[in-house]
Amino acid sequence: MLESLSIGKIATLMALGSDSDLKKIRKRAQEEGYIVYKGCVGSMDSAKIFAAIETAAKKEGIIKPLYREEHSIYHSILDAYAAICRGQAGLGNVLRTVGLAYSIVKGPRIPKEMNDGDWVAVVLYGNIGAPTKGYEHEVIGLGINPI
Amino acid sequence: MLESLSIGKIATLMALGSDSDLKKIRKRAQEEGYIVYKGCVGSMDSAKIFAAIETAAKKEGIIKPLYREEHSIYHSILDAYAAICRGQAGLGNVLRTVGLAYSIVKGPRIPKEMNDGDWVAVVLYGNIGAPTKGYEHEVIGLGINPI
Amino acid sequence: MLESLSIGKIATLMALGSDSDLKKIRKRAQEEGYIVYKGCVGSMDSAKIFAAIETAAKKEGIIKPLYREEHSIYHSILDAYAAICRGQAGLGNVLRTVGLAYSIVKGPRIPKEMNDGDWVAVVLYGNIGAPTKGYEHEVIGLGINPI
Amino acid sequence: MLESLSIGKIATLMALGSDSDLKKIRKRAQEEGYIVYKGCVGSMDSAKIFAAIETAAKKEGIIKPLYREEHSIYHSILDAYAAICRGQAGLGNVLRTVGLAYSIVKGPRIPKEMNDGDWVAVVLYGNIGAPTKGYEHEVIGLGINPI
Amino acid sequence: MLESLSIGKIATLMALGSDSDLKKIRKRAQEEGYIVYKGCVGSMDSAKIFAAIETAAKKEGIIKPLYREEHSIYHSILDAYAAICRGQAGLGNVLRTVGLAYSIVKGPRIPKEMNDGDWVAVVLYGNIGAPTKGYEHEVIGLGINPI
Amino acid sequence: MLESLSIGKIATLMALGSDSDLKKIRKRAQEEGYIVYKGCVGSMDSAKIFAAIETAAKKEGIIKPLYREEHSIYHSILDAYAAICRGQAGLGNVLRTVGLAYSIVKGPRIPKEMNDGDWVAVVLYGNIGAPTKGYEHEVIGLGINPI
Repeated sequence: MLESLSIGKIATLMALGSDSDLKKIRKRAQEEGYIVYKGCVGSMDSAKIFAAIETAAKKEGIIKPLYREEHSIYHSILDAYAAICRGQAGLGNVLRTVGLAYSIVKGPRIPKEMNDGDWVAVVLYGNIGAPTKGYEHEVIGLGINPI
Repeated sequence: MLESLSIGKIATLMALGSDSDLKKIRKRAQEEGYIVYKGCVGSMDSAKIFAAIETAAKKEGIIKPLYREEHSIYHSILDAYAAICRGQAGLGNVLRTVGLAYSIVKGPRIPKEMNDGDWVAVVLYGNIGAPTKGYEHEVIGLGINPI
Repeated sequence: MLESLSIGKIATLMALGSDSDLKKIRKRAQEEGYIVYKGCVGSMDSAKIFAAIETAAKKEGIIKPLYREEHSIYHSILDAYAAICRGQAGLGNVLRTVGLAYSIVKGPRIPKEMNDGDWVAVVLYGNIGAPTKGYEHEVIGLGINPI
Repeated sequence: MLESLSIGKIATLMALGSDSDLKKIRKRAQEEGYIVYKGCVGSMDSAKIFAAIETAAKKEGIIKPLYREEHSIYHSILDAYAAICRGQAGLGNVLRTVGLAYSIVKGPRIPKEMNDGDWVAVVLYGNIGAPTKGYEHEVIGLGINPI
Repeated sequence: MLESLSIGKIATLMALGSDSDLKKIRKRAQEEGYIVYKGCVGSMDSAKIFAAIETAAKKEGIIKPLYREEHSIYHSILDAYAAICRGQAGLGNVLRTVGLAYSIVKGPRIPKEMNDGDWVAVVLYGNIGAPTKGYEHEVIGLGINPI
Repeated sequence: MLESLSIGKIATLMALGSDSDLKKIRKRAQEEGYIVYKGCVGSMDSAKIFAAIETAAKKEGIIKPLYREEHSIYHSILDAYAAICRGQAGLGNVLRTVGLAYSIVKGPRIPKEMNDGDWVAVVLYGNIGAPTKGYEHEVIGLGINPI
């Protein structure tokens, strides 16, 4: 899967991959100049998803302490969150919960494309469902914005 | 990426993968009993995305000529479409266009899970953007429903 | 069904009822001082639903030629239309079509409630589905606004 | 109202009807092979609506303990809920509350249509409004999915 | 800015203006027969915005204690709130907060237009952003309904 | 209105103001280093609004021919468009039309704030209504993004 890469594809493969996949993807992505991060978050409270990813982005130094950078990552999370909700926003308020892996990737839209600056991609991947064990199916969401 | 599989992961990897990736994924998925298909569609007219995927699902025999099966694939497309629009539905009406690969996968949510019947997953993956060459970034959407 | 009445219940029963039901409902509603109308419209083009109902409301004299009255009926249609779309707006653009009966009812929210003036209710009831005969299920939508 | 029936019409009449209407509708629906249930729920907290109906569907044996059945009823509730919100989702968060009757109906889309299996319909009917007595008007929502 | 006026323009200028601007706008608006009010509200809890404005409208006597009047102001707030959310509803649930000035204006859509009765306009203007000082940008929303 | 300024306030006042207001606002804004533009567009076809503003932004040199700049202005238009639709997207498809003034403003969020780079604000202001002369009321929308 790693011959041709792009920012969204890297973020998606990272979110989907096992620990050993992750090693290879991270290595290839870093060779191309991308900054990458993967984490996990699960909740019925959607604000916790936003908080977890924003905190990670700051701690890992993916974004600088400037509002315009925070704004970019916030809107990438909001886009990915809207995508996993598929037109009907909400988690706990419509009695559903998620268990998600997330990835954050910063770099060019396509490796070596140097004229268009850096972008940030956020992927949410995991399961959405009732608060009953095993009553869930997969969801995926991707948000990309210039940074 | 293929050690542990699930219906949404298969559909996502198929949509993302190159032709040679596709061969391996298809083989592994079919060994696990999945029916899989991959196609392409690009348009500013969202109805064409729905038509292309529904037609493929019928032609390939993925769905039987019953309304309840058509309903399942329709709502999987609608969910994936809502996901790529990320909360603000529309393509040409908001002056944007997409070039997408799509996949259709039918089978259990997780291989060997035999008590919960078949589900259908649709993934849309590609680029969304202005009707100007290269002015686009990636999007991904996944819809899953019981069939 | 006609012992206790209210504006939305009258509008719903009118939209659901057969021709002979309609006679009884209309008689009871008119005794309570309601102005009622029933019509039909089917289309993949949502604007035609709005046009059909607005035209009927004007022709039948349900609304006076004032913007504030047109605004009330417009928003009742918009609410009912949003309801039949169930969170994901659109008909032809998401490759679905509707065949609908609609009703318009003007009068108090509850018979004899004289302090709160007239309201207008619009109900859309019928089938939504693929542009394939029989591939459809029922939908209902109700919008109510002061007039 | 009971000469010609369909799953959505049964669910709507049940939600609208008085106790004595309900007896007749239930009898006719059961003769046609439908499983029917009616209950009540009121709240500013939308999750309580979902919980009340899902719990009733399980307790009454309308759905089997399988995720695909829970998924069908969940999406029928979600569709009906989106309908009563009419495009702007939310209850307490936008300072409004509901008092609702709800119905659950399982069976064919149209009596005797044996080729297309069972479907489940959920209707929400009642009043939406400010948290002030009498400051409310009617709403109705219907969701239908194959089960 | 005050030569030609209209209900929405008055409400917008009031929400945007400084204290000294407000004096002039209020005077001009009152000369034209408008009832005007300006207040402030800030929160991550959207219900508080609705409560603050509804309470002010009642206390100031802008609306009479009738549901149809409360309904008009409620929907003007709901429209303005939807506008500041720009397609993706929510504040605290998507980890953002607002600090807003709001205005309420009652009167004709355009001064001297006597045939079309009174309307009510609500404007929300201020900043939306992360719960971090200075990480915010401006938003504006306007809702108008007949009253 | 011009003592204290910010990017959204400038854009709003420009969209609201008469020709003579515009002169003063433009002068003050340019003194503070803002690039400003005002135009007009009216249509039932929402794509024309996007096209008019994007074309103006390019022709006037407000954005450079880079996708990241086009993306910023596009999302500012999309946000402002979502705001004037107030939760229920669409113009001609829901039988309504708009006549709008629009403004584009580029510069810091607040004058002299030099650490957080340039942002772009788009305001849409005008009337929305039925395709009948005079059957319309005001709307306003504002979108702001880093550029």
